[in-house]
Amino acid sequence: MAGSSFGKAFRISTFGESHGKAVGVIVDGVRPLLELSEEDIQKELNRRKPGQSEVGTPRAESDIVHIYSGVFEGKTTGTPIMMILYNQDTRPQDYNDIHKLFRPGHADYTYLKKYRIRDWRGSGRASGRETAGRVAAGAIAKKLLAERKVKITAYTLKAAGVECKKLDFSVIERNPLRACDMEAAELMLERIREAKDKKDSVGGIVECRITGVDPGLGEPVFDKLDAELAHAMLSIGAVKGIEFGAGFKAADMFGSEHNDAMDKDGFVTNNAGGILGGISTGEEIVFRVVVKPTSSISRPQNTVDLEGNEVNIVTEGRHDACICPRIVPVVEAMAAIVLEDHYKRQEALWA
Amino acid sequence: MAGSSFGKAFRISTFGESHGKAVGVIVDGVRPLLELSEEDIQKELNRRKPGQSEVGTPRAESDIVHIYSGVFEGKTTGTPIMMILYNQDTRPQDYNDIHKLFRPGHADYTYLKKYRIRDWRGSGRASGRETAGRVAAGAIAKKLLAERKVKITAYTLKAAGVECKKLDFSVIERNPLRACDMEAAELMLERIREAKDKKDSVGGIVECRITGVDPGLGEPVFDKLDAELAHAMLSIGAVKGIEFGAGFKAADMFGSEHNDAMDKDGFVTNNAGGILGGISTGEEIVFRVVVKPTSSISRPQNTVDLEGNEVNIVTEGRHDACICPRIVPVVEAMAAIVLEDHYKRQEALWA
Amino acid sequence: MAGSSFGKAFRISTFGESHGKAVGVIVDGVRPLLELSEEDIQKELNRRKPGQSEVGTPRAESDIVHIYSGVFEGKTTGTPIMMILYNQDTRPQDYNDIHKLFRPGHADYTYLKKYRIRDWRGSGRASGRETAGRVAAGAIAKKLLAERKVKITAYTLKAAGVECKKLDFSVIERNPLRACDMEAAELMLERIREAKDKKDSVGGIVECRITGVDPGLGEPVFDKLDAELAHAMLSIGAVKGIEFGAGFKAADMFGSEHNDAMDKDGFVTNNAGGILGGISTGEEIVFRVVVKPTSSISRPQNTVDLEGNEVNIVTEGRHDACICPRIVPVVEAMAAIVLEDHYKRQEALWA
Amino acid sequence: MAGSSFGKAFRISTFGESHGKAVGVIVDGVRPLLELSEEDIQKELNRRKPGQSEVGTPRAESDIVHIYSGVFEGKTTGTPIMMILYNQDTRPQDYNDIHKLFRPGHADYTYLKKYRIRDWRGSGRASGRETAGRVAAGAIAKKLLAERKVKITAYTLKAAGVECKKLDFSVIERNPLRACDMEAAELMLERIREAKDKKDSVGGIVECRITGVDPGLGEPVFDKLDAELAHAMLSIGAVKGIEFGAGFKAADMFGSEHNDAMDKDGFVTNNAGGILGGISTGEEIVFRVVVKPTSSISRPQNTVDLEGNEVNIVTEGRHDACICPRIVPVVEAMAAIVLEDHYKRQEALWA
Repeated sequence: MAGSSFGKAFRISTFGESHGKAVGVIVDGVRPLLELSEEDIQKELNRRKPGQSEVGTPRAESDIVHIYSGVFEGKTTGTPIMMILYNQDTRPQDYNDIHKLFRPGHADYTYLKKYRIRDWRGSGRASGRETAGRVAAGAIAKKLLAERKVKITAYTLKAAGVECKKLDFSVIERNPLRACDMEAAELMLERIREAKDKKDSVGGIVECRITGVDPGLGEPVFDKLDAELAHAMLSIGAVKGIEFGAGFKAADMFGSEHNDAMDKDGFVTNNAGGILGGISTGEEIVFRVVVKPTSSISRPQNTVDLEGNEVNIVTEGRHDACICPRIVPVVEAMAAIVLEDHYKRQEALWA
Repeated sequence: MAGSSFGKAFRISTFGESHGKAVGVIVDGVRPLLELSEEDIQKELNRRKPGQSEVGTPRAESDIVHIYSGVFEGKTTGTPIMMILYNQDTRPQDYNDIHKLFRPGHADYTYLKKYRIRDWRGSGRASGRETAGRVAAGAIAKKLLAERKVKITAYTLKAAGVECKKLDFSVIERNPLRACDMEAAELMLERIREAKDKKDSVGGIVECRITGVDPGLGEPVFDKLDAELAHAMLSIGAVKGIEFGAGFKAADMFGSEHNDAMDKDGFVTNNAGGILGGISTGEEIVFRVVVKPTSSISRPQNTVDLEGNEVNIVTEGRHDACICPRIVPVVEAMAAIVLEDHYKRQEALWA
Repeated sequence: MAGSSFGKAFRISTFGESHGKAVGVIVDGVRPLLELSEEDIQKELNRRKPGQSEVGTPRAESDIVHIYSGVFEGKTTGTPIMMILYNQDTRPQDYNDIHKLFRPGHADYTYLKKYRIRDWRGSGRASGRETAGRVAAGAIAKKLLAERKVKITAYTLKAAGVECKKLDFSVIERNPLRACDMEAAELMLERIREAKDKKDSVGGIVECRITGVDPGLGEPVFDKLDAELAHAMLSIGAVKGIEFGAGFKAADMFGSEHNDAMDKDGFVTNNAGGILGGISTGEEIVFRVVVKPTSSISRPQNTVDLEGNEVNIVTEGRHDACICPRIVPVVEAMAAIVLEDHYKRQEALWA
Repeated sequence: MAGSSFGKAFRISTFGESHGKAVGVIVDGVRPLLELSEEDIQKELNRRKPGQSEVGTPRAESDIVHIYSGVFEGKTTGTPIMMILYNQDTRPQDYNDIHKLFRPGHADYTYLKKYRIRDWRGSGRASGRETAGRVAAGAIAKKLLAERKVKITAYTLKAAGVECKKLDFSVIERNPLRACDMEAAELMLERIREAKDKKDSVGGIVECRITGVDPGLGEPVFDKLDAELAHAMLSIGAVKGIEFGAGFKAADMFGSEHNDAMDKDGFVTNNAGGILGGISTGEEIVFRVVVKPTSSISRPQNTVDLEGNEVNIVTEGRHDACICPRIVPVVEAMAAIVLEDHYKRQEALWA
């Protein structure tokens, strides 16, 4: 009922607030006898952690992960794996001036309406920092999927109004935007600098491509593979939409265009984005999520305080001008969790 | 694990295949003492049923609902409500010629890969007919939400490349497209006729607006209101994407544009689409789903048979040239189920 | 949240009231390609149905099962299997005199407290008739378990104060008590006749033995195999307790007595009842449930009416003097459902 | 699917092994604005911790709890509460000699069969130490239930063959057995000393009485209050059976005896143990669980090693001669979790 868990057979439960003592996750349902070390987790966390470039927040979390259970002599035991990251560079005083105001674009207002209390230090539970637990869990799922030859790659397709023209996987980890086109990345960076100068932020689109998925994954009729991927992606703070394959362009297409014909080698096109009837086709799974511009900006904005008085707010603190590159590993992690979960569910069906 | 149930506190489980004996649903968790009759359900089913206009399939199902449990002397008892619709106008022989072929755009191939057997009569479980159970369950949710003053309205925003220019709720049920703009509806109809003449089908966009939702609904961090709405919508067969509020346009916006400022009367704009941090703001909830063109078209298409031989397929049968108007009540039903579920979950949190 | 579903990977959802239109069940998660006919189900239902002997109620339900979905050309398709039994011999008028009274031992009072409304015709949802859906679902689980060489046998171990001295499986279906000892069965029958003459009813103990279960089933720490069997058994109306292996006798034992030693052939004794640490050992699983005497008796009893006035009640209707023989197939069905579910969960863990 | 979580609306997920880095729990679904401190948790943990008397193990864990999330400025925020206890007095070397042997009565064999790997240090995940997380979570549930005027009291009713003759709640925390009869407690202690001298252990019965529960709790038909209490209790390592109210005695009773009559003041007797049809009656809830004698004894026992060779085993280490007094707080904790969960579920039903 309460919503801090995700997945059925491969199940994660995150905990922790941005400026509390720690953030972390329990993963239940991991196959026994998987070799697993803190390094396996750390390398994914390093991709998400703050302070990687001028695009992101300068908050200096070392984000060192500790595995506290479920691993014995370097191998998983099939019991819950608890992973924790202690918060270190917390500066709750940054929020002293604004904790009685509702920051535009943030969940301040809604958390207070829902819970009648909120941990206002750095957005508390609503902080992007919560996703560290997801990335840690996703690292395990990715390792299991690698054994299945499944490969998940997300990247910034668009940011600050600039769209990638090329799809070059080799450059993704070599530019601060995690864009798939080096030239576009440079232009994005330029535009983001301009936005930062204006104390503003920018949005973008992250695309994800998954290869090696066997046909047959997904649980009609409600837990379709695309339905669960959509659930997973929309559970990421800044994501406001998702589309598969041809996506919103399908609105303007004819059936004869959108239908993917088949020949003896398989599907000729992939407008479906690798999923038909909620089940994987075996083709590449392709989806895109839209990432809203970071809500925290240092410009004055109009809002109200707890009593409803109109006030002007300036969100100082340390923020990302464009969150896309840090969302990339989160998208991959959540996709990995969904897929690993569905592999297990498929086995259960046929058990 | 198996995926034919949806919701937690208000939970539906559908059953049935297109050309089997019946389709239906069990709804568990309905508040006791709600006055409920078969007429309450029937009026929603009539909006979904086939044969309403030239846009849709001429299949002539009367779609009469029977309530078999959970209602006593006209009132709900708090126990599971089973509702059933017997299939009548089944013509499995329509599928005789094609049951060994994979129809492009359909789930034939993926169902066979997943289950190694498939009920090929009219798509079986993958048929849009399964959504009758959802609409029946949604009718109960809508009745409960009406008591809460929540109103859900979906409509065709775009079809066959034509977009509505007006937003006039009063015309929705008065045109065969369920469009929100009468002039646009006429143009859509014209274009659809052209497509039909070419034995083709068209896609579109369905928009949904929900008013009266209290602030505070949604269960961070995974069961955010938008995440569960996305899950629900992508579980509808032809839906390939969803966006909330400003949606994909957010990719090109600045934070200063996208952030919704507040004044003493509440939110000034609603780019968030009524949801912040996964929790309802109290503003109108607005989302759009993209509906792919109907997969069944009477044109010859390239595909393969069960043995992988390349063949030409012509899907005769009785199909919708544009599925948008019949998806409208399904979108409303699923939205109602998600909301009623979250109202209950919010009560449980505070119990 | 609402409680009409059971199981995770093999999941059943029952519906229906005793004197409503029908009772039934949806089973989701059944392996595809299992050969399944209505006869497979019917033979188990016939063991549960009323009117089998003088021990049970003379209510004359034919209890014919109909499979409405999930089976195609004689085989399961992996989609939800809906099975329904129409109610025929309903006599709600039997309850006219007593529907404003709380029958002692029945759930009348508690249903009204919980739901503020109750279908008083024959106990409504609280009727033992609801278990028909369980037995139907259990028949599928049993068929799947038979392929795994798992055999489940329940029987009346004690009734009316008479305990079986022999354990002879061959006689169980040959005496109206389903006792495992023919002589004891005769004595039980005699005592039950005496009780019936006094318009009274009797209790008993049903024992269940399961062979062929592989070691390794059960999901520590909360979903231990014994914990889920206990959940399943206590969900049966008249069951008030359960014990595994040595059971309550363990209270008086020493560790050196209770511990099951091992030698090269396996476990030497089986005080554990086939489950250690919540996981099957591979030995016979043995448990006993206590069945309270049937609540409906034709003797005058003291109770109150809806307004709290003290009244005398005589429950006429048609009732079982001893419910044990009809609980036997329900115990087997629920055990089968738990086991099949755990086989699937074990596969998911290792997927 | 994996079984380390329990509860639906009030949901706990435990993690950790006996001799790993830590044990703990996440509790999701706690009502916001509850005042909660580590002291509230600690006082319950102190009742469970080792080293309280000669009856229990001398392992000297300080069992200090840390709350890492979900509490802000002394109040719950409605977000997941993570509580952790670091393991300190671990002596894995105690297990060096025996980690290749299957200790009789322990889960060594079954864990290895299930997971093909096991953390053999002090039983790993199967250790009673895992229940520390349950007691911590239960402390929160108890605090919430106290606001509802619900009081849960468990105590040793029988141990080492000695049964309490009195029911005196005031003495429970004043004798090392947590027995409800001071004289019986002394006799129990004497018998336990004798057993210890013989390097043996003893079993017992723990009874639990719950007052103040409103009528109407429980979710028919599968999640009956007694069914879920049974699930919860059987999930405790050493528990091998449970009975409600008259319990197994019901087997020998007549309906006219077992049925609880009502008069204008309510129920006259309570053979039902406070639950009818799976729903609370408002009377005292009464159940008993049987606790097997502690498996770890220092006597030589016959067993086999990993290769199946017959060997003699002596379990040294530090163990409880009678686990009943330490199971008492665990029984209370699990009962509290079930009840709080059902209070929430009842609210959700009526939302």
